[in-house]
Amino acid sequence: MKQGKRSVTITDIARELSISPSTVSRALNNHPAIKEETKRKVITLANKLNYQPNLLALNLLNKKTNNIGVVVPEITSHFFAAIISGIQDILNASGYNIIMCQSNESYREEIKIIENLSSVRVDGFLIAPSSKTRKLDHFVKLKNSGVPIVIFDRDCQGLDVDKVLLDDYDGAFQAVDYLVKSGCKKVAHLGGSLSLSTSIHRRQGYIDALKSNNLSVRDDHIFHTKGFKHSDGIRAAKSLLKLKDPPDAIFAVNDRIAIAAMYVAKMYGFKIPEDISIIGFDDEPHSSYFTPSLSTVRQPAYSIGLLSARILLQNLSNPHDSPGFRREIFRPELIIRDSSRLRPDT
Amino acid sequence: MKQGKRSVTITDIARELSISPSTVSRALNNHPAIKEETKRKVITLANKLNYQPNLLALNLLNKKTNNIGVVVPEITSHFFAAIISGIQDILNASGYNIIMCQSNESYREEIKIIENLSSVRVDGFLIAPSSKTRKLDHFVKLKNSGVPIVIFDRDCQGLDVDKVLLDDYDGAFQAVDYLVKSGCKKVAHLGGSLSLSTSIHRRQGYIDALKSNNLSVRDDHIFHTKGFKHSDGIRAAKSLLKLKDPPDAIFAVNDRIAIAAMYVAKMYGFKIPEDISIIGFDDEPHSSYFTPSLSTVRQPAYSIGLLSARILLQNLSNPHDSPGFRREIFRPELIIRDSSRLRPDT
Repeated sequence: MKQGKRSVTITDIARELSISPSTVSRALNNHPAIKEETKRKVITLANKLNYQPNLLALNLLNKKTNNIGVVVPEITSHFFAAIISGIQDILNASGYNIIMCQSNESYREEIKIIENLSSVRVDGFLIAPSSKTRKLDHFVKLKNSGVPIVIFDRDCQGLDVDKVLLDDYDGAFQAVDYLVKSGCKKVAHLGGSLSLSTSIHRRQGYIDALKSNNLSVRDDHIFHTKGFKHSDGIRAAKSLLKLKDPPDAIFAVNDRIAIAAMYVAKMYGFKIPEDISIIGFDDEPHSSYFTPSLSTVRQPAYSIGLLSARILLQNLSNPHDSPGFRREIFRPELIIRDSSRLRPDT
Repeated sequence: MKQGKRSVTITDIARELSISPSTVSRALNNHPAIKEETKRKVITLANKLNYQPNLLALNLLNKKTNNIGVVVPEITSHFFAAIISGIQDILNASGYNIIMCQSNESYREEIKIIENLSSVRVDGFLIAPSSKTRKLDHFVKLKNSGVPIVIFDRDCQGLDVDKVLLDDYDGAFQAVDYLVKSGCKKVAHLGGSLSLSTSIHRRQGYIDALKSNNLSVRDDHIFHTKGFKHSDGIRAAKSLLKLKDPPDAIFAVNDRIAIAAMYVAKMYGFKIPEDISIIGFDDEPHSSYFTPSLSTVRQPAYSIGLLSARILLQNLSNPHDSPGFRREIFRPELIIRDSSRLRPDT
């Protein structure tokens, strides 16, 4: 607070008009027992003095804040931003406000955020856990306090709450199966950190698609990057494409890594897709403007946001104590562009 | 709240231990008048019952929430995400929590956000105004309530608060001056919405750079897109490059529009940079991985975030009532890659 400036209270308004604070309060709340003339006077003065109702105090009474906490690992990614758009479209239409926090993939940050949002008392939580989150005590504590939670995108095994997830396994399987059916014999994988459930599931989809096509899984054709920056992808792609027996296709864990792989492949003289096919995951907005345009797996991020928010709203209006929780799983869509060969049958 | 589950209060703990609520309160606050034995009992039971101190009530007393409201038009853009990273690094280190909200470039949303964050009483505000914000009443009201505000990225003329801005004019001037000095005679501009101060300043920098090089400003070589999607850029670039007398260079208002222009130029058979040079603005992470890699103007987004947060912290710890406000302006940096010709003198 700046010096000499403090918030105007109901008492200030009451003193100025020589009426009781309770009359001011009822006037502001449009109570029928208060005369119109009084209401007019109170409201005019309240506006003049820049009076702001102390919602903190009101919240103490009705225990509802109309705020929903949304916790994501990072807001930079197009994927989470699109989910947040979906969440926002539903919650704003229902009169809820969104309070966003990013954990920066840090377990400690995530705990701090949950504690802080709990203390300002949000009505519900929509959470995509950080990649470092192993212990779930902070989520369990939150759940036990009775606040509705919906987990989205990344699974938390062992935590029984409503979840909206994406079938990463299926997306990876579709991509790798396509690569093999289009004639590629040596499909490599540039994967992400194995501390993320999404990376684990995409890797498994890759492995199973190879097996179901009777191709062997080669350890020297699988690299996992620690981070998701282009530079992580550049490093991994260089190691992969320098091999004496390089792959003829790459399935990358996301578009950023795929774009880095395209960059390295071109630098090393590979023709895309003649010498090497590349498929990413995410369908970022710029992916179709590269040369060649990037084939990818599109995630229905906006729809994941919509559904997560809808489930939370249902829990808020109609709390359930049943042991069953919803587990909704979206199926991603393979988008074939110019960075991968065409299937002979298409 | 789920049925049968309500928050544990100090009264519950008091009843269970047969002591007074005020003793419980003082025990939890480590008051010297309370015996260690009692403190131990209270804390043990509070943990067992999952007691959460009602910070709403505490905040009413000490009037400090440790929350800072950060309001941006959109979190999707790399630019705002990088600013937020800078803000977060400073505020988290100082024990503040960040509550983020996005206005989606909507004036109405922005007003709602300001009202909501005011009512949960954040200690300060960091705001990049929406492109639709004309009236400043909501900011003036906020300022008059005594809460410190720092405006960043987009100027609000007529609002006297601390501001951290970027010299968009200078960035545009540098880019266009470079294009002319590298031999381009017909430099076009793909600009953004003229409701944004950044777009206006970049346009003016473009115009003045042409004039200072004794080149005429051609109305048919200036297009302004409404939005910032690739599709907006594609449409504008098509109109521009279909002209009978097309430009030999394009300065685009941002990288997204520049990438769309590169896409259209290639589609129409222009060689980049031989036939046409293209320079963007923002230096998005993927911009250097395009073929050719995109020349651009780099904004020190992270530093803008750092400085904005530092100024806010100074205001929080040492409120000033002086009429003077800080106005910090960052100078952007021209990054020349392969989408623009080299200057003969470099």
